[in-house]
Amino acid sequence: MKPVTNIWHPCTQMKDHETYPIIKIERGEGIYLYDDKNNKYIDAVSSWWVNIFGHNNPRLKDAIKNQLDKIEHVIFAGITHDPALKLTEQLLSVTPENLTKVFYADIGSAAVESAMKLSYGYRKNNGVTSKKRYLYLDSGYHGETLGALSVCGEELYTELYGDIMIENIRVQGPDCYRCPYGKTRNECSAQCFEHMERTIEKHANEITAVIIEPLLQCAGGMKMYPPLYLQKLCEAAKAYDIHTIFDEIASGFGRTGTMFALEQAGVQPDFICVSKGLTSGYLPMSAVLTTDEIYSAFYDDYTTLKAFLHSHSFTGNPLACAVANETMKMFKELNIIEENRKKFPVMHEYINKKFKGQPHVGEIRHLGCVSAVELVKDVKTKESFDWKDRTGFQIFRKSITKGAYLRNLGDVIYFMPPYVITEDEMIKLVDIAHESIFEVL
Amino acid sequence: MKPVTNIWHPCTQMKDHETYPIIKIERGEGIYLYDDKNNKYIDAVSSWWVNIFGHNNPRLKDAIKNQLDKIEHVIFAGITHDPALKLTEQLLSVTPENLTKVFYADIGSAAVESAMKLSYGYRKNNGVTSKKRYLYLDSGYHGETLGALSVCGEELYTELYGDIMIENIRVQGPDCYRCPYGKTRNECSAQCFEHMERTIEKHANEITAVIIEPLLQCAGGMKMYPPLYLQKLCEAAKAYDIHTIFDEIASGFGRTGTMFALEQAGVQPDFICVSKGLTSGYLPMSAVLTTDEIYSAFYDDYTTLKAFLHSHSFTGNPLACAVANETMKMFKELNIIEENRKKFPVMHEYINKKFKGQPHVGEIRHLGCVSAVELVKDVKTKESFDWKDRTGFQIFRKSITKGAYLRNLGDVIYFMPPYVITEDEMIKLVDIAHESIFEVL
Ligand SMILES: Cc1ncc(COP(=O)(O)O)c(C=O)c1O
Ligand SMILES: Cc1ncc(COP(=O)(O)O)c(C=O)c1O
Repeated sequence: MKPVTNIWHPCTQMKDHETYPIIKIERGEGIYLYDDKNNKYIDAVSSWWVNIFGHNNPRLKDAIKNQLDKIEHVIFAGITHDPALKLTEQLLSVTPENLTKVFYADIGSAAVESAMKLSYGYRKNNGVTSKKRYLYLDSGYHGETLGALSVCGEELYTELYGDIMIENIRVQGPDCYRCPYGKTRNECSAQCFEHMERTIEKHANEITAVIIEPLLQCAGGMKMYPPLYLQKLCEAAKAYDIHTIFDEIASGFGRTGTMFALEQAGVQPDFICVSKGLTSGYLPMSAVLTTDEIYSAFYDDYTTLKAFLHSHSFTGNPLACAVANETMKMFKELNIIEENRKKFPVMHEYINKKFKGQPHVGEIRHLGCVSAVELVKDVKTKESFDWKDRTGFQIFRKSITKGAYLRNLGDVIYFMPPYVITEDEMIKLVDIAHESIFEVL
Repeated sequence: MKPVTNIWHPCTQMKDHETYPIIKIERGEGIYLYDDKNNKYIDAVSSWWVNIFGHNNPRLKDAIKNQLDKIEHVIFAGITHDPALKLTEQLLSVTPENLTKVFYADIGSAAVESAMKLSYGYRKNNGVTSKKRYLYLDSGYHGETLGALSVCGEELYTELYGDIMIENIRVQGPDCYRCPYGKTRNECSAQCFEHMERTIEKHANEITAVIIEPLLQCAGGMKMYPPLYLQKLCEAAKAYDIHTIFDEIASGFGRTGTMFALEQAGVQPDFICVSKGLTSGYLPMSAVLTTDEIYSAFYDDYTTLKAFLHSHSFTGNPLACAVANETMKMFKELNIIEENRKKFPVMHEYINKKFKGQPHVGEIRHLGCVSAVELVKDVKTKESFDWKDRTGFQIFRKSITKGAYLRNLGDVIYFMPPYVITEDEMIKLVDIAHESIFEVL
């Protein structure tokens, strides 16, 4: 074994790097990452779906610099500060009316875990002890701390750790490309909701909450499904007194074409979790938004011991709040949602043009500022490539040699660039993807 | 119910704030926090034990500003950068030789969860499936995501959530103030290790790791115990093939008088978790340091599926790395450990002078840059105050009116200031504590 590096990189088989060098990035500029040899790469995945306004953005970095001259961090118990107060107002102003309280955490997983604990704590504080399990979907991903991992529907991440997590209830979810009802996206009536419905009916009295990535299951393979599913879900959950936790960590902040994905379904979940784009991908920060009803269940005299005693050291970090506030400001001032609505169809259309009908192109999917191409061995039967061939991974490595960091998800190649990408750059990125794919296949 | 604020503060019964206003902090300077009315408060708890070089520190903020002009963040899979490479070298250079690899996570809890998963994953990858439980101590605290919470020995944090966590094995640990063997700290032979020893002997084949805060149990009440306990622990763990996870998240970076607490025991744990002081408390970041042996168990061809696929979005954040590197530099250049060794005895001695023999002063404890005064109803019997009286909390609220943020842990009042505190400021802080305590009692 060669010591590749003394850093153990995340979500990585380190042995791969005996073959593939680790790129050393020195600087960033807009959609580009520059390495130590001055090669540049399009950050086609927005650095794990966090970056929205490009690297080294003057407005965002000034926001951090200005805050640095006031206070970088302060304990957030018994203490507040303007950056957090402003951000809280901003967040509540762009989310459904029923959400009135914001609990800050520091990373996506911790927001998910907080929402899970809040849902269950609400039950306990109201004297209900039976509702202690969570529903989650096939292909869902909500982070990898053990609570968040216990609601992950991707074996790749969970398989090794089954014995050290609690068991929650997994439900067959939407799988539109391989729709078991033989429907196309246009004909869909979210018939697949029947699995969820049956599970809810059967287990309602054990279930405190259902957690879901609205419209877009990211880590599960950039799977997209219709708003109708969310409408059915919220209705059924309400009928059976089950909380809805919408994980908007990846879908939030304009990624699916609206500020939050939930808008496309017109629903009001009990919790939403946000992170990633919240700080434009500059600094870790997350938040859970919830209702007065949840809040009230924890609001009482101290000696009742009903308080939500959860905390993280860096909760409410003023630097992260400052860059989040600038992010919110930019959304408004630059009309980002509308601008993206004009611009991203160029990417969709060029992807369609280059990939439709091409060999091994199983499905092409678009939703707002995300597009995905799912590659399969057999287009007719939709049979996947043998996963051991690592087709997608080879394409990813190829793309790097051509100037794009197009990290695959299995055999799904996806496009999730920062919103500052130009139309020309979209074309270039799609061309690189096309070349990489067909040189490998 | 009055809407106190739309922010749900961490580790807080929000109803308390109907009575006690939330302080709005505008800026910081060294050990001081300034509110919107220009009142100043000594940050006596270093903003939850994270701040070590004071607020608004020119060197630290310049480090962040300089990095901002290069790159703020980039995905850390397949990619590396100088700030992370430097930091990794630095961390490995100040920790035991057996630790050779660094896995980054973003917050303390996530580092703990990563270490837990790594320990268990190591077993699984080596074909061992029986070792799936963790040992932890009474009064131990390791964070509040559900995995970390499952090894927390403080009911205050765990009680509500027992049903949604896996069950690990809790062990009676050291309790030096109320030593069940009737010993004083000077006579101690860590007899209390017998509980751990018995548990290890009995359960060795189910246990993958033991997790512990070395020398100092912070959230559990600033409890201090001798290095001998850690030596016995590491020896027994080794004999029974149990991993040792040292949680140095609060004790690390000089807090207990040495760079890491483990140095005082001269031991080599299998994992250490660091965070908080790692960035001088400026930005969230954490890391797990581990051995080649652990690393090797995950190092293989991709298709064996042995990789550690854990990740967090902001892993390896360059801004956090930059301020961590400046932190490490300051430790060296300013001789921080030695300087603290000269300076902090002033605080210890003045606390002794003011508090020894005073009514209700149960125990006075010192360790490096931390001191604690445990208040009790009856000094002879060591009987605590009725927790419902919230004696410590009242003292905390009193201290705020006198210019110090001296957040209590139950009826323990503790001193954990940034290292930049001067001797005069130490005196002032202890005087405020003394007044606050005896006005309340
Ligand atoms: C010893 C110890 N471990 C873990 C943690 C959890 O870290 P975080 O709050 O960043 O999740 C803390 C935080 O207070 C701690 O003191
Ligand atoms: C939908 C979703 N939820 C949760 C998470 C976890 O967030 P973090 O990586 O910050 O822990 C992610 C991260 O990729 C995510 O995509």
